Amino acid sequence: MSHSADSAPAPFRVAVAGLGTVGAATVQLLADNAGLIAARAGRPVEVVAVSARDHNRPRPCDLTGIAWFGDATEMAARAECDAVVELIGGSEGVARAVTEAAIKAGRPVVSANKALFAHHGWTLAQAAEAAGVPLAFEAAVAGGIPILKALREGLAANALDSVYGLLNGTCNYILSTMRDSGRDFADVLAEAQSLGYAEADPSFDVDGVDAAHKLAILTSLAFGTQVNLDAVHVEGIREITALDIAFAEELGYRIKLLGLASATEAGIEQRVHPTMIPADAPLAGVDGVFNAVVAEGDAVGRVVLEGPGAGAGPTASAVVADLIDLAAGRTAPPFGLPAAHLRPLDALPVERRRGSYYVRLTVLDRPGVFADIAAILYEEEVSMESILQRGRNPGDAVPVVMTLHDTIEAAARRAVDRIAQIEAVVETPVVIRIEHL
Amino acid sequence: MSHSADSAPAPFRVAVAGLGTVGAATVQLLADNAGLIAARAGRPVEVVAVSARDHNRPRPCDLTGIAWFGDATEMAARAECDAVVELIGGSEGVARAVTEAAIKAGRPVVSANKALFAHHGWTLAQAAEAAGVPLAFEAAVAGGIPILKALREGLAANALDSVYGLLNGTCNYILSTMRDSGRDFADVLAEAQSLGYAEADPSFDVDGVDAAHKLAILTSLAFGTQVNLDAVHVEGIREITALDIAFAEELGYRIKLLGLASATEAGIEQRVHPTMIPADAPLAGVDGVFNAVVAEGDAVGRVVLEGPGAGAGPTASAVVADLIDLAAGRTAPPFGLPAAHLRPLDALPVERRRGSYYVRLTVLDRPGVFADIAAILYEEEVSMESILQRGRNPGDAVPVVMTLHDTIEAAARRAVDRIAQIEAVVETPVVIRIEHL
Repeated sequence: MSHSADSAPAPFRVAVAGLGTVGAATVQLLADNAGLIAARAGRPVEVVAVSARDHNRPRPCDLTGIAWFGDATEMAARAECDAVVELIGGSEGVARAVTEAAIKAGRPVVSANKALFAHHGWTLAQAAEAAGVPLAFEAAVAGGIPILKALREGLAANALDSVYGLLNGTCNYILSTMRDSGRDFADVLAEAQSLGYAEADPSFDVDGVDAAHKLAILTSLAFGTQVNLDAVHVEGIREITALDIAFAEELGYRIKLLGLASATEAGIEQRVHPTMIPADAPLAGVDGVFNAVVAEGDAVGRVVLEGPGAGAGPTASAVVADLIDLAAGRTAPPFGLPAAHLRPLDALPVERRRGSYYVRLTVLDRPGVFADIAAILYEEEVSMESILQRGRNPGDAVPVVMTLHDTIEAAARRAVDRIAQIEAVVETPVVIRIEHL
Repeated sequence: MSHSADSAPAPFRVAVAGLGTVGAATVQLLADNAGLIAARAGRPVEVVAVSARDHNRPRPCDLTGIAWFGDATEMAARAECDAVVELIGGSEGVARAVTEAAIKAGRPVVSANKALFAHHGWTLAQAAEAAGVPLAFEAAVAGGIPILKALREGLAANALDSVYGLLNGTCNYILSTMRDSGRDFADVLAEAQSLGYAEADPSFDVDGVDAAHKLAILTSLAFGTQVNLDAVHVEGIREITALDIAFAEELGYRIKLLGLASATEAGIEQRVHPTMIPADAPLAGVDGVFNAVVAEGDAVGRVVLEGPGAGAGPTASAVVADLIDLAAGRTAPPFGLPAAHLRPLDALPVERRRGSYYVRLTVLDRPGVFADIAAILYEEEVSMESILQRGRNPGDAVPVVMTLHDTIEAAARRAVDRIAQIEAVVETPVVIRIEHL
C-alpha cells in the first residue's frame, strides 16, 4: 500500500475541557508521542480546542495554535472536533453539562470522571446510544491500568464471579505506611498530605467515596448491570489503628481498603471497607500508591492487573488510549453491553454478607468475662475461630481479639452489639471483615 | 431501539481447525456462554464448521449440527464462515497452510499459535493487510491474560521502555517447587510431568523455546518492530541447581525464567534465561503455573498483568475474546501498527548486555585462590560486589559465590573464562544474570 500526500488520513480532532494536571498532561502526551500515536491510531490525533477557567495561568503544555474557549459547554457543542475530552471532574455542574452537550451534538466523549459515571453512568450510556455516540472513560478507574478494556473486551468471553481490588492509592499508601512504621492514622495522613499523596480535604479518599465510585463502574462492566452507586456499602479507613494493624500481622493478615463486587445467587454485593486479607494473597503485596484489580471469570480463572492508579501521566495514558481507539474506529458500548441490556442491580445488602470477622474488644481483665462472651456467641449461633489476649493487667483494660468463623453479618453484628453491653467491655468493639482472597 | 425478528443481527460464523483440549474448550465456551457472548458481541457467535484429524474420537464438546471437514485447509478456504480459528499448532505444516488459506480466501484468522507468529508473524501480517483481513492471536501469549490487547490498545499512548515477564508456566512451576522443596531439577521435572504440568518431551518449555516465541511477539507489539525470533538469546533452566537457588535466597534474590525485551540506545535486546530478581520484585511472588507480564511506558509507568498462562479454559477465553472483537467490528493491526510501519529489529546482542552477575565457582580450598581471582577481575576491569564461601574444607572443593557489579557481558565472560582456567577451580563456573527489576 502506498499513500500520496493527498490521501493522507484526516487528523482526529480533539477538544479538551479542563486543563488541570491531567488536562495539561494529556495535551502534552499527545504532542510528545504524536508520531507513535498517529501510527497506532492510523491518523494523527490533534488537540484543536481547549477550555479552562483561567486563560492566563502558566501550564506545562504548549497551547500554540489551539483554539481557546472560555465556556467548556459551548466548546463541547460548537468546536469543530471529532471528540470531546472531559477532565473537569465532579458529578454535576460543568462536567455533566459538557458531557451532555457533546452527546447532544453527536460528539464522542472521553472522560476521566469517575463521579459522573458512578452517579449517571447508565443515563449517559442511554443518551449516548440514542445519539449513536461512543463514550469512553478508561481513565476513571484505576488510572493507567487498562482494566475497563480488560473487562469489556479482553475477558468478554467470561461470566465473571467477582471483581475486587485496591482502588484508592491514598488509602493504600496510608495503610502501607502505618504498617511499615507502626504509626497511627492521623500522623500518616498528615505526612501523606505534605507529600501530595492526599488532598487537604482527604474525606473523598479516606472515607472510601472515591473507591466506591470506581467499584460501581467496575460492577456494571463485570456483571452487565446498571451502575448503582447507592447500593455500595462504604466504610473508610479513619478508624483503623496501629494496634489493629499489629494484630492483623500476628494473625497472618494485612489490612487493605478493598473494593469488592461479587455475584452471588442472592444478588450482587458491592462493598468498600477496610479488609483483612491473607498476607500471601496477591493483593497483600501491593503497597504504596499502586492500585490493583482482580477479576475472576468462569473460563479464565483469576487475572490481576496492577499499576499506577492515579497521577497525571498514568491518567493521560488512559485518556489518550481511548482517543486512539476512537480515531482507529474501535468502539464498544460504554458498559460492555447495549444500555437496554444492562439489568437493574439486584443488590445483596451487607447485612446478608457471609464471611468471617476480626473483632477487637477492650475488656477489663477480670474473671468471667470470657464466659459471658462465649454465652452470647452461642446464643447468636456465631462460631469463634480464635481468641487471644495479649498480656495480663488484672482489673485494668486489655485488648482481646477474636476471629469469627463464616457467618451472616447480621448475626455477627447482633452478637457484637450484645457483647458491647457487657459491663467489663469498656470501649466500642472494632469489627473488621476478613476476606480469604 | 427495538428489533423485530427480521432485523436480528446475523450470527458471526466460526470455523475451528483443531479440536484438541483448547479447540474443544473453545467450542464449549462459545456454547456455554452463548447468551452473554452474543450480548457483548452484538450478535451471536456460532461455530459452523470444525476440522480435526480423527472424526470419531470422543470430545468434551457438542458438535451436533456443525459441519465436519477432514481437511482443515480446505475448510479454511471453503467453509461458509466469517472467521477461521487455528488451534492446530506448530510453525509450519497444516497450521501455516490453514492460516495462509484463510487469508487468501479473505477470512479473518484467530489463532493461539505462538510458534507460527514468532516465526512468520511479519510475513503473515503483510499478507493479511494486503488482503484486508484481520489477524488476532491474543491466546498465543500468556494464555488468558489480555496482554496483547493491553500493549496494542490499552497502553497505546506510551513509548515503551521494556516488556518482561514470566512467560512459561512449566518453568515457573519447576523453579517455584525447587525453591519450596529444596529438590533438584530432574526430580521436580519428573513430578511436573506426572502432574501434567510438563510434557513428556519437556524441551520446548524447559529450554526456553516457548518463552522465546512469546517474547518475540511481545517485542514486536511493544516496540513496533518486525518479529525477530532469531535475535532472541535463549537459555533454559536445566542447569539450575538446588544449590544456586539456596544461594540466591541467601543473597535476597529469586531465580525465575525471565523473558525480557528492552529498548536501549544501542538497540533492542531480547533475552530468555534464568534470572535472579530481587525477592521483593513484583514478579518474585508469582509462583506456580502463573504467568505475569510487566510493561514499562513513558506516561503510565509500570503496569503488571498476571494470570493463568496456559490451559484449556484460559486459552479459550482469549480465543473467544478475539472472536467477540471481530464480531463487534473492532479490529487493529496484528502487531499494533500497519505492517509497513514495523521496523526491522536493530538487535543488541547479549554480549553487549550491561548488568550484574552471580557467579558460582567450585574451588579447592587452599591459599592464594582468591588472590588469583581478584587479579583476573582487576585485569578485565570487572568489579566484584561481594564474595562468599560457605564452610571450610581444606584441600577439598567448596562452593564460592561472587556477585559482579554492572558490567558488559563480554567482559564478565572473559573474566569468568579465565577464572575457570585457574588450576584450583575444578568445575565449570555457573553464571546467572541478575536483573534489578
